[in-house]
Amino acid sequence: MTRLTLAVDAMGGDFGPCVTVPAALQALASHSQLVLLLVGDPDTISSFLAKADSSLLRRVQVIPAESVIASDAKPSQVIRQSRGSSMRVALELVVAGKAQACISAGNTGALMGLAKLLLKPLDGIARPALMTVLPHQQQGKTVILDLGANVDSDSDMLVQFAIMGAVMAEEVLEIRQPRVALLNIGQEETKGLESIRAASAVLRASPQINYIGYLEGNDLLTGKTDVLVCDGFAGNVTLKTMEGVVRLFLSLLKSSGEGNKGKGTWWLKLLGRWLKKRMIRRFGHLNPDQYNGACLLGLRGTVIKSHGAANIQAFAVAIEQAEQAVRKQVPERIAARLDAVLARSDKA
Amino acid sequence: MTRLTLAVDAMGGDFGPCVTVPAALQALASHSQLVLLLVGDPDTISSFLAKADSSLLRRVQVIPAESVIASDAKPSQVIRQSRGSSMRVALELVVAGKAQACISAGNTGALMGLAKLLLKPLDGIARPALMTVLPHQQQGKTVILDLGANVDSDSDMLVQFAIMGAVMAEEVLEIRQPRVALLNIGQEETKGLESIRAASAVLRASPQINYIGYLEGNDLLTGKTDVLVCDGFAGNVTLKTMEGVVRLFLSLLKSSGEGNKGKGTWWLKLLGRWLKKRMIRRFGHLNPDQYNGACLLGLRGTVIKSHGAANIQAFAVAIEQAEQAVRKQVPERIAARLDAVLARSDKA
Repeated sequence: MTRLTLAVDAMGGDFGPCVTVPAALQALASHSQLVLLLVGDPDTISSFLAKADSSLLRRVQVIPAESVIASDAKPSQVIRQSRGSSMRVALELVVAGKAQACISAGNTGALMGLAKLLLKPLDGIARPALMTVLPHQQQGKTVILDLGANVDSDSDMLVQFAIMGAVMAEEVLEIRQPRVALLNIGQEETKGLESIRAASAVLRASPQINYIGYLEGNDLLTGKTDVLVCDGFAGNVTLKTMEGVVRLFLSLLKSSGEGNKGKGTWWLKLLGRWLKKRMIRRFGHLNPDQYNGACLLGLRGTVIKSHGAANIQAFAVAIEQAEQAVRKQVPERIAARLDAVLARSDKA
Repeated sequence: MTRLTLAVDAMGGDFGPCVTVPAALQALASHSQLVLLLVGDPDTISSFLAKADSSLLRRVQVIPAESVIASDAKPSQVIRQSRGSSMRVALELVVAGKAQACISAGNTGALMGLAKLLLKPLDGIARPALMTVLPHQQQGKTVILDLGANVDSDSDMLVQFAIMGAVMAEEVLEIRQPRVALLNIGQEETKGLESIRAASAVLRASPQINYIGYLEGNDLLTGKTDVLVCDGFAGNVTLKTMEGVVRLFLSLLKSSGEGNKGKGTWWLKLLGRWLKKRMIRRFGHLNPDQYNGACLLGLRGTVIKSHGAANIQAFAVAIEQAEQAVRKQVPERIAARLDAVLARSDKA
C-alpha cells in the first residue's frame, strides 16, 4: 500500500485539538502508511502531541493557521473572512496536492462553501452532497444522501445524488448493482414533489442505475435499498429523527428499572443489569456514536465532515473514512460514472 | 353530555368492515351518548353486527353505499368517480348536518380532496393539514402537523398550520400558551428553506402565538415543544422515520436472546423474558399502534383519517378522536383564532 497524506482541520468542532489530535494519533497507529498534516495553532497542537510515540510523530506535520471559523458564523461572511483559518488552510493543502483529502468537524455551511470554491465540483454536478453510510436491520449498510448540504434539490441534483450514491455503494461497500431508491411520502408513482417524480422518470430510464422506486421514512433502517436519495432538507430530517429516537431508546433502556430502588433482591437487580447490557450491545450498531463522518461527494477531491460534537473515537472514524475514500478513488470513479449516465440521458 | 352522531366509512382501509364495525361497537360501548352511521355495503356490515348487544345496535344505523374508493386510485380520478362511494357518502352526511364528523381509513389523497370539495376550508385557510398528537419523553404530548396533506407548503400555509396546532394544544391537550416550533435543519435563524424563514418572521411577530423558534428532527420526541409545525413532506418523513425506528427497536427487543436456545438455565430464560416484557411496557407509549387517527384540520367540519392498516383497537381510537374534536368544537375555535391572528398580521 502506498503512502497517503491527509489534512486535518485540528481546530474545528466543539472540542478542537483535545479531540482531533488524539484521534489523529489513534488513526496513525492503525494505519502505518498514513501521514497527517494537523492544521491550526502550533502551540496548542504540540501540547497534545507531547507524549506521543516517536514512531507516530515521524508521520505528523503541524501546519500553522492563525484563525478558526466560528461554528455559528453566517455562510455569507465565512468566505470573505476565511483566509488563514484552519479549515481553509486544510482545504488549500488538498488543492495544492500536498494532501489527498481533508477532514473537518467545523461549520458545515462554511465547509460546503469553501470546498466548492476551492476544490470545484465535478463536471455534471451542480452542487456537492453530504453522504453517510448507515447500518441497517439486515446487518448491511445503506448509503444515504443528501443530508443537508442543499436545502432545495431539483430533479437534476437528485439524479446526480443517485449516481454518486450508487458509485459509493459499489466501490466502498462492494455491493454489486446496488439498489437505488428515492425517499418519498408514498410508494405510488404519482406521490410527492414534482422534482422527485421527474428524477424517478430519469432514473427508471437509466440502465446504469438499478433503480427500485420510492421508499418512505419508515424504511430508513430496513435494508430495502442500498442507496437512499433525498433532497437535503428531508435527508437531514430523516437522519436526525432516527438519531433522536435511537438515543431516546438507549437512554430509556439504560435508565429502566432505576426508579425501583429497594424493590427486588440483589441478585435480581444484578441479573437485570446484565440483561440490559446485553440488549444495549444488541442495539449498539445503531448508536449514532458508532459511525461518524459525512463525505462531501461531487468535488474534485475528498472532504469529510465530522459531527461537531464527535469524541476521539468518532473523529478517528472520520479520518478512516477519508483514507478509504482516497484509496477507493471515489471522486475519480464518480466522475467516470457521471459521464456515462449523463451522456445517455442527454440522448434520451 | 349531549348526543353526538358520527359517520364511519365502514369500507375504507386495508381490512374494511371486519375492522371498522367491531371498532365501532367498541366505541359505542365506551360512549353512551354516541350514535354511529356505518356507511357501506349493508349485507357485509350487517354480518359483523349480527352478534352485537341490542343496546348498542339501537345507536347504530347502516347507510348504504354502493362502491369503495381504491387505496391506490389517482387523486385526479377519485373526485369524478367518487359519487356513491362509502367515503363520499360519509362526508355528505356531515355536509347535510346528519353527522357531526366523519372517520375513514381509506385513500388519504381522496379523503383530502373530497373533504376540501364538500366541507370547504375555513376562511383564511388555503389548504387543510393532517395533524396528530404524539406522546413524548416528558410524559406529555406534542401536536404535529402537516403530516402529508400538502407536499409543498408555503410560508402562509405554515403560519396557518401553527395557529391550528396551537388551538389544538390549548383546547384538546389543555396546555396554556402552548409552545410552537418550526421543524428545520438547524437552530440558527439563517437556516433552512425560504418558506420556513418567512413563516418564522410572521410567527415571531404574532403575540397570540408562543413561538419558540426552530427545532430539528432529533427533537421530535424530546418534549421541547407543544406544537411542531412542518411542511407536509418533512412532517410525513419525520413521523414515518420515527415509527420505523420505534418498530425496529420493539422487534429487536422482543427477539433479543432468542438465538441462544440451549444456553442458560430455564429460570434464567424465564427471568429474561419477564425483564424484557417490563421494558417493552416501558416503551409502550411510543408504540405507533397505541395512537391512531390524524385529524384533517382547517375544514368547516371534523374529518379523521385513520391509518389504512389500523387494527380494531386503533380504529376505535380514531373514532374517539373524532368524538373529542367535535365536543371540543375544534373547527369553530380554529376559525375564531384565525380571525384574530390573520387580522393582526395584515396590519403589520
